[in-house]
Amino acid sequence: MYTSEQVLAALSHVEEPDLKKDLVTLKMIEDIKVENKKISFSVILTTPACPLKEMIKNACTNAIHHFVDKDAEVVINMTSRVTTKGTNTFPNIKNIIAVASGKGGVGKSTVAVNLALSLGKKGAKVGLIDADIYGPSLPIMFHLEGERPSIAVVEGKNKILPIEKYGIKLLSIGFFADPNQAIPWRGPMVSSAIKQLFNDAEWGELDYLIVDMPPGTGDVHITVAQGFPVAGAVIVTTPQNVALADAKKGAGMFRMEGVKVPILGVIENMSYFTPAELPNNKYYIFGQDGGKKLAEQFDVPFLGEIPLVKAVSEGGDSGEPISLNQNHPLSHAFLDIAEKVAQQVAIQNAVANKELVG
Amino acid sequence: MYTSEQVLAALSHVEEPDLKKDLVTLKMIEDIKVENKKISFSVILTTPACPLKEMIKNACTNAIHHFVDKDAEVVINMTSRVTTKGTNTFPNIKNIIAVASGKGGVGKSTVAVNLALSLGKKGAKVGLIDADIYGPSLPIMFHLEGERPSIAVVEGKNKILPIEKYGIKLLSIGFFADPNQAIPWRGPMVSSAIKQLFNDAEWGELDYLIVDMPPGTGDVHITVAQGFPVAGAVIVTTPQNVALADAKKGAGMFRMEGVKVPILGVIENMSYFTPAELPNNKYYIFGQDGGKKLAEQFDVPFLGEIPLVKAVSEGGDSGEPISLNQNHPLSHAFLDIAEKVAQQVAIQNAVANKELVG
Repeated sequence: MYTSEQVLAALSHVEEPDLKKDLVTLKMIEDIKVENKKISFSVILTTPACPLKEMIKNACTNAIHHFVDKDAEVVINMTSRVTTKGTNTFPNIKNIIAVASGKGGVGKSTVAVNLALSLGKKGAKVGLIDADIYGPSLPIMFHLEGERPSIAVVEGKNKILPIEKYGIKLLSIGFFADPNQAIPWRGPMVSSAIKQLFNDAEWGELDYLIVDMPPGTGDVHITVAQGFPVAGAVIVTTPQNVALADAKKGAGMFRMEGVKVPILGVIENMSYFTPAELPNNKYYIFGQDGGKKLAEQFDVPFLGEIPLVKAVSEGGDSGEPISLNQNHPLSHAFLDIAEKVAQQVAIQNAVANKELVG
Repeated sequence: MYTSEQVLAALSHVEEPDLKKDLVTLKMIEDIKVENKKISFSVILTTPACPLKEMIKNACTNAIHHFVDKDAEVVINMTSRVTTKGTNTFPNIKNIIAVASGKGGVGKSTVAVNLALSLGKKGAKVGLIDADIYGPSLPIMFHLEGERPSIAVVEGKNKILPIEKYGIKLLSIGFFADPNQAIPWRGPMVSSAIKQLFNDAEWGELDYLIVDMPPGTGDVHITVAQGFPVAGAVIVTTPQNVALADAKKGAGMFRMEGVKVPILGVIENMSYFTPAELPNNKYYIFGQDGGKKLAEQFDVPFLGEIPLVKAVSEGGDSGEPISLNQNHPLSHAFLDIAEKVAQQVAIQNAVANKELVG
């Protein structure tokens, strides 16, 4: 019969590769149970979308076999408790992730939607705000045109109830406007509308709130970055120089004094086109490797590239985002990107909480 | 020997197809000279980019041969005097044309730049303002990164001198900002910056001032549409539903009470992709005919479609827009579009001046 101490001692040899400390120090081990040759425990990851899940699980099994008993039956419950910054002023929303681009039309909304759905598929509690006040596309992309969120009284206050679809909670400025009507709003009105989507909605408990930002660096950006505890920003770009130049500015804004939002990484969209008849050809219509170079320049991770695929724009147009199609290769590509984003959020939280040197 | 009256009488049978009146009533005939069998005169078109130029010229020749003398030698000088609205408060700038899109990244700047260059190639005096305050791309697209316009004293006032390149005059908010720095400007600052590009620049005499608007329907749109005598707006879209929805809103804004800018037509960009290896294949990556349908919905002309071609984005990225390449098929496509735009401007001016029922 082994003791819990023996188990902990063994697991203290397993390092969390991102946070660079062992699992015991990081308090990631719970519920140790020992029955004869059977050793069971939970590993509390920083996100259900942890890309290192299998690697950490294997390392734990190996550590028990090596330091405790090579014949032990090891049963590990891989679970998670999504981390947040200690300074988070919105305790029920653990992590706000801004999806931004300098230039419009680079696929920012496509990324935001599929990122949100992929995090949801991994088991996270996810919300999505469409803050693109001048061109909200979420109602079309979720086939929710004409829908209106209901209002409920919560603790004596009128609260907007986000609409739930495909397992995530949604709010779009488009739910409050006539889709055929432009909203020629001046700056201050924009700021106040955007604040309402955060403050006056009943989001409940969320692990991640994805915010689809408008293109550029205007009022919404200042309002969100200065007014809310944004965990980090994902920058979406195409490989074109003109898009990269704008992306650079967009990213630069998040790094400004008085804003200081960590950049989680760069996603390149519309990377290349492959006709079905020529499956080995990649046509780099908008140039090559622009996103990778931008990530290098900013010294942030390159989170992935998404080819030009008709199913992606069709998915957006039909209200059934590509991530819902489990079998499509791009659905896997987005899952992979979502894991990398969640990983970067956990790292940034650890940096903010002084658990890791950034 | 014929008289000028005979020539005028003959030409009064030639109708200007757009303005639906004869050339004499429209005062389009000047400098009639008759020497023996030789009859010469000038036809003053409403734009040097008139797509009906050859048709009108032939009609004049036929009319002289039919009504005056079938053996007359007819020498016609086809020239132009670009029209403007009688209410134009900027007399030195005859026509301000806004190039707009609801959504960003649909190729609005590409269209604006190639439209300006094509009108210039046709002999018009052209200026181009890059009003995309959050993502100015003109400095890259004209390879003018880091350039600064000079200032001159004109009639006792400091004036910005637009930069001249490829035969047109240019100003971009990008000339006044660090390209690596975001401009997180609040609305009122945006409005005042944009007004300066119009009011404080020494544009000289212009037939057309093309304004590359930011995406969406924000402060810049209100400022330009309400503050300046815009001749008309060109709407650029891709065939995607999400882009069309935004384009609809963008177009709707120009039609609002208190704005009332005529919509000159719709241009569809990124219509399809054709690999060099499969020259007969068209891949409608973003959907099909969206631009045409939008034009129908708005009851405005469809001005043309532009396929996804690497040379277009390369041209923009390298500072040598595709229109400079005389031999490229897309260069012709843009010339064709420019003619249609100039034609619509002339029609709208005639409507505004009550010379034509709109």
